[in-house]
Amino acid sequence: MNLSIDVASGEKPLDELVNGAIGALSLNKDVNLILVGNEKDIVKSLSSLKYDKNRVDIKHSDSIIEMTETPAVAVKHKKNASVLVAARLVSDKKAEGFFSPGNTGATLAAALTEIGRLKGVMRPPLVSTLPKIGGEFCMMDMGANVDCTPDYMAQFAVMGRVFAKRYMNINNPRVALLNIGEEDSKGNATVKKYFERLEKMKKVNFIGNVEPNSMLKSDVADVVLADGFDGNIVLKSIEGSASLIVNMLKSEIKKNPLNMMGAVMMKSVFKNLKTQMSSDSYGSAILLGLNGGAFVGHGTTGGNGVKNAVLNMYKFLDAKINEKISKELLDSGVKRRIF
Amino acid sequence: MNLSIDVASGEKPLDELVNGAIGALSLNKDVNLILVGNEKDIVKSLSSLKYDKNRVDIKHSDSIIEMTETPAVAVKHKKNASVLVAARLVSDKKAEGFFSPGNTGATLAAALTEIGRLKGVMRPPLVSTLPKIGGEFCMMDMGANVDCTPDYMAQFAVMGRVFAKRYMNINNPRVALLNIGEEDSKGNATVKKYFERLEKMKKVNFIGNVEPNSMLKSDVADVVLADGFDGNIVLKSIEGSASLIVNMLKSEIKKNPLNMMGAVMMKSVFKNLKTQMSSDSYGSAILLGLNGGAFVGHGTTGGNGVKNAVLNMYKFLDAKINEKISKELLDSGVKRRIF
Repeated sequence: MNLSIDVASGEKPLDELVNGAIGALSLNKDVNLILVGNEKDIVKSLSSLKYDKNRVDIKHSDSIIEMTETPAVAVKHKKNASVLVAARLVSDKKAEGFFSPGNTGATLAAALTEIGRLKGVMRPPLVSTLPKIGGEFCMMDMGANVDCTPDYMAQFAVMGRVFAKRYMNINNPRVALLNIGEEDSKGNATVKKYFERLEKMKKVNFIGNVEPNSMLKSDVADVVLADGFDGNIVLKSIEGSASLIVNMLKSEIKKNPLNMMGAVMMKSVFKNLKTQMSSDSYGSAILLGLNGGAFVGHGTTGGNGVKNAVLNMYKFLDAKINEKISKELLDSGVKRRIF
Repeated sequence: MNLSIDVASGEKPLDELVNGAIGALSLNKDVNLILVGNEKDIVKSLSSLKYDKNRVDIKHSDSIIEMTETPAVAVKHKKNASVLVAARLVSDKKAEGFFSPGNTGATLAAALTEIGRLKGVMRPPLVSTLPKIGGEFCMMDMGANVDCTPDYMAQFAVMGRVFAKRYMNINNPRVALLNIGEEDSKGNATVKKYFERLEKMKKVNFIGNVEPNSMLKSDVADVVLADGFDGNIVLKSIEGSASLIVNMLKSEIKKNPLNMMGAVMMKSVFKNLKTQMSSDSYGSAILLGLNGGAFVGHGTTGGNGVKNAVLNMYKFLDAKINEKISKELLDSGVKRRIF
């Protein structure tokens, strides 16, 4: 399976990203890579690494879309920016999926314009797996569609179910709606309409509303649905809380020498916690419902993050999730509202 | 200053709440208490405590609104429930403010129906102070008004400024709008309208959008505005993240004896962290813009939480924040849109 990786537009050095991507090759023998970025820089990075040369190609791109650029404008005018080149390899059937840790909006726009939606998909949602006490769940939309309709949400439910079954190996995933209370009547006007629509669906195991605290603290839902605005608010609240708590811990530790000794003894605890909460573990999100794989990385994605993205992208594409989504949406007759 | 405290409808035992309230008396000589709940139980609780009997009254109420009851219905039919009796003491001018750790919706409803809004206030917002790296900020609305209009948001800006100045002693508070990006054009349709409205305000030091991660990680804003739906989503995401991280820490610690020894040495660190993140420190929120003080506690509020609520309520009422809000809203001619 060929995967294209934009190693040019992240915040971390190209060297680190190339290194991470190559690291995935020994862990999965079925993966081949097309690295996208400045050819000279990539060749230089690769020269110090040991790997099977038959499994790695380079596709040159000498421009990137900066983090600060407006996605819609940049995607129109920088046709050869690394993220667009990486996505185009998918539409040209040279790769099955692409990954970019660059400007999120530009990555989404590149995926939509170059790869395009599956037939029947109204709006592709961005899905992430997130940690909860004792496991994982997935949530969508994490920010691709800030304004949604009840019908989009109904499609998200179908897509989320397929994702949870095939990617997370959950047998009969419980689908819930993000809300500020559990009761059916809770929510603002928009979310109440989502609820009414979801409640009518027979086949998606819709269990009702879930609050952000319970979805993180307990095993109540496998798929949590929200529009892209609320999903992104939750994601950024979790990220901010993690930073805040780690910072509180650090300043408490500095208060006396006994704490500091204790912290040294607990070094592995903090290291593991950092790994578990880092964007390299939970940073990349998948845009569902396209004619190919589109993995969106956090700007701070490092070598480990790229390695994980490659392995996860293989897992995602190998499970034929988009193909299954296409079938289920057609079967359920989404636009005619009969599912 | 007289304050009425509903000691009956929290999740913790009445004994603990009475004990906490009495604990505030020695810390502030200007506070007198009216404890609301079953008289016999309160008398029994008080019998083991040392305090100035002239400073404590009891107001009997033999029913409570349960956590599971529908607020609007319960408030209509249980006129003598503890939370309503506590609020009524404020409208009867026997107390300047009340506190309840019971059913949040019922507490809000009790405040609105018994105490009522200040002239000119469209919708009273629920405000909370929250921790950020290196300090505190305040956020509103935390859940009282799930559907808002741009004009409500404009009033929240005025009220938030007064609160931050007088309660948090911030000289020229920076007011920001909760959003998923910093750029002016970000957000869903609703939030874009809030932005347009706030941008027109001359006197509130509106600095634009703020993301949940930056508001927690950096010192960018003093007052963060959101409608009650988004505010509540953020609050519950922070709460859930804190539980998740503490749980991850605990399971990591259990993995080996060295970690456990380290954790014992760091006991004070974990204790202080727990205090800093607990609902007893950050659990109570204030409903702004009423003809009296209304403090809404978390259901899990314990003795320390009640003590803090009493002290904070004094601070809030002593600073004449509602009086100042009333003046500023009238001065700014909110309904005629000239501020």
